[in-house]
Amino acid sequence: MTKITALDTYDVRFPTSRELDGSDAMNPDPDYSAAYVVMRTDQPGLNGYGFAFTIGRGNDVQTVAIDALAHHVQGLDLDDIVGDLGGFAQRLIGDSQLRWLGPEKGVMHMAIGAVINAAWDLAARMAGKPLWRFIADMTPEQLVSTIDFRYLTDALTPDEALTMLHAVAASKSQRITRLLAEGYPAYTTSPGWLGYTDEKMQRLAREAVTAGFRTIKLKVGMNVEDDVRRCRLARETVGPDIDIAVDANQRWGVDDAIAWLQRLSDVRIAWAEEPTSPDDILGHAAIRRDVPSVPISTGEHTHNRVMFKQLFQAGAVDLVQIDAARVGGVNENLAILLLAAKFGVRVFPHAGGVGLCELVQHLAMADFVAISGKKDDRAIEFVDHLHEHFIDPVIVHNGCYLAPQSPGFSAQMHASTLAHYRYPDGPAWCEPASVARAQ
Amino acid sequence: MTKITALDTYDVRFPTSRELDGSDAMNPDPDYSAAYVVMRTDQPGLNGYGFAFTIGRGNDVQTVAIDALAHHVQGLDLDDIVGDLGGFAQRLIGDSQLRWLGPEKGVMHMAIGAVINAAWDLAARMAGKPLWRFIADMTPEQLVSTIDFRYLTDALTPDEALTMLHAVAASKSQRITRLLAEGYPAYTTSPGWLGYTDEKMQRLAREAVTAGFRTIKLKVGMNVEDDVRRCRLARETVGPDIDIAVDANQRWGVDDAIAWLQRLSDVRIAWAEEPTSPDDILGHAAIRRDVPSVPISTGEHTHNRVMFKQLFQAGAVDLVQIDAARVGGVNENLAILLLAAKFGVRVFPHAGGVGLCELVQHLAMADFVAISGKKDDRAIEFVDHLHEHFIDPVIVHNGCYLAPQSPGFSAQMHASTLAHYRYPDGPAWCEPASVARAQ
Repeated sequence: MTKITALDTYDVRFPTSRELDGSDAMNPDPDYSAAYVVMRTDQPGLNGYGFAFTIGRGNDVQTVAIDALAHHVQGLDLDDIVGDLGGFAQRLIGDSQLRWLGPEKGVMHMAIGAVINAAWDLAARMAGKPLWRFIADMTPEQLVSTIDFRYLTDALTPDEALTMLHAVAASKSQRITRLLAEGYPAYTTSPGWLGYTDEKMQRLAREAVTAGFRTIKLKVGMNVEDDVRRCRLARETVGPDIDIAVDANQRWGVDDAIAWLQRLSDVRIAWAEEPTSPDDILGHAAIRRDVPSVPISTGEHTHNRVMFKQLFQAGAVDLVQIDAARVGGVNENLAILLLAAKFGVRVFPHAGGVGLCELVQHLAMADFVAISGKKDDRAIEFVDHLHEHFIDPVIVHNGCYLAPQSPGFSAQMHASTLAHYRYPDGPAWCEPASVARAQ
Repeated sequence: MTKITALDTYDVRFPTSRELDGSDAMNPDPDYSAAYVVMRTDQPGLNGYGFAFTIGRGNDVQTVAIDALAHHVQGLDLDDIVGDLGGFAQRLIGDSQLRWLGPEKGVMHMAIGAVINAAWDLAARMAGKPLWRFIADMTPEQLVSTIDFRYLTDALTPDEALTMLHAVAASKSQRITRLLAEGYPAYTTSPGWLGYTDEKMQRLAREAVTAGFRTIKLKVGMNVEDDVRRCRLARETVGPDIDIAVDANQRWGVDDAIAWLQRLSDVRIAWAEEPTSPDDILGHAAIRRDVPSVPISTGEHTHNRVMFKQLFQAGAVDLVQIDAARVGGVNENLAILLLAAKFGVRVFPHAGGVGLCELVQHLAMADFVAISGKKDDRAIEFVDHLHEHFIDPVIVHNGCYLAPQSPGFSAQMHASTLAHYRYPDGPAWCEPASVARAQ
């Protein structure tokens, strides 16, 4: 009988702030980082991998939070985890003492999500399937059994979820065939970082269109005149047929968001992302009501299913982002995808950072095959950074993510990456020129 | 010139689960704990004290999160903190890399709150005033300058806040006189823990009334028949003139809460606290709409001012709890108190745990003197546990908190407490009988 022997953690940081990659109105100098976790078994070569994503300082806090979950994992039979992915997640989320540190939000919830994701990675590896296929091959009953419906039943009951899943189950194999042939649409944020010059933005926007992307996204929120100029330049550059989204990264209050977005309304924005605090459900609803020409979205910082439920109930968003490493793992994202499908809200998964593309593609593809049944009216974010550190990196071709084929959740990093970027003792951080950035 | 030399932290835990003190429907076995912080200066005897409250496991994570803030404090001139309490708080909350770990919620936000509270403690000590008086003696302009209005201006602008504060400023000294003479009303949760027998509950309820309390609170949510029986027994025990509140500690979904509270409506409940997820603003509004006979409240886990703003905007609560150690310190609680005053919502501060009574009394008293101007229609929770560990413990007499007289925020623990209860190496945890609880 296979046992879980350890939950090993690694504080891995990439000095991305040196190049201003990833700069936006709220995050001027991120060092993309991962609190990385390996769920080790006593079977040689069989481990589960996961991580929480952070942007530098505090990645040590995130790593210690994962360590605090070790007693829920060490010594368990493997079957207690991979044979009961719903019960396993509920044991972590239901730890009453740790729950106080959220509840179901922030550092502790992201730590729980990383460990839950590692368990799903392990389960998919054992099944010999990429995670999207592992989920897609579950029966509706199996999928629903992984979800915690606490606080959800006023919007979605288990029976409703089953009815929804059964309705699309018969046509799963057709969608698997389509997914394998076509991939899943991607959009790119690479042209739009605030630290870039107009010329660099335009060059990258042209390259994005040439590469097959149908949607690009620009960061906004530092200066309204700059934003108007950059959006118009981008529209001139890509022409009328490419969607342009903007992302304010929570920069504004509700009143500011309304005034600012009205200034941008003549550029034909595909969506305005994170116009204000991710906690402000009623604020997003007010912005959406007062700026009807701009679709409104949020979600990458939306901390759990209860908040997504309310965004949908309040009619606060036209579309939504999900993030694979912010909420309580695959289980909670399945709940969110079901809620989105029930309310008819399109999902444009958040990615970028380090490894977020690798993770979230599986969720979007499982959603297409087994939950919403849709992919042509939505797209996964793509940023072409840091994929070389993963053993099974994403493949984006002609503006689409190709379906991963290797077993698991694509979360495993190379051993050489862990050694080189481990903070603070890896060579990437110990060289004298690096130390100043490590404050 | 006085400098801040260090931010020292201590993982302090009390083995309260051995006695079932503090047991409720969601927290069966809490070990009340503090991630305790000392902001040290180079002036002998002059330090600031603060803490985040947790219930056991994860207190190490909370402590490490406070450590992650040291670079914002070490080496600063004291004036940069105590002379600019608003700017200091904004520098902590605005650290873009650490902000990713919330934003403004969970472990990192509680850590920031602990450090901000230590700064206010230090400022009040230097002024030679208890914190409530230090706040009450601020001009309206000084008080407003400490508040971060980001994400608030659709509900409360700085100018509105100034107008509110000026309106009560002239009568401050009369209320100070009343506060010093009368104290501030308390209510007690001591009779109502779920782990207690009916007889113990009744005995403690009688003792509470004899001691002068006008409100008691019972924990509910494990079994509806038990709750109906215990509430009726309590009503028989205390008679018709004492208020009885109930607290479900987030046990229910929205539908369950409605059904359960309807069963309790004939006992005349003063308020039902935390009927569902603290994140579920629309859920609280639905419960309040569907159970009009029971006033609805939440707040002890409400993680920031944006959430309180929405509770008020949505009409989701009849009254609200605040917690001194959950949100971003004194500054954010001042914002919340101003919002509550503007929306006319009564505040019943959450306390208990370890040291929460000591802290929150200052905020309630400052609110009475300088913000809402009210105290007779509200009360501070009181639980008679663990006060002996504080140098300036609360004094509750005839059902009222007496106004603290010593300078500071009453947050300092005895050195002997830190030594004895320090986890995992203090004697309270190293004795063989204790080790089993420390899992």
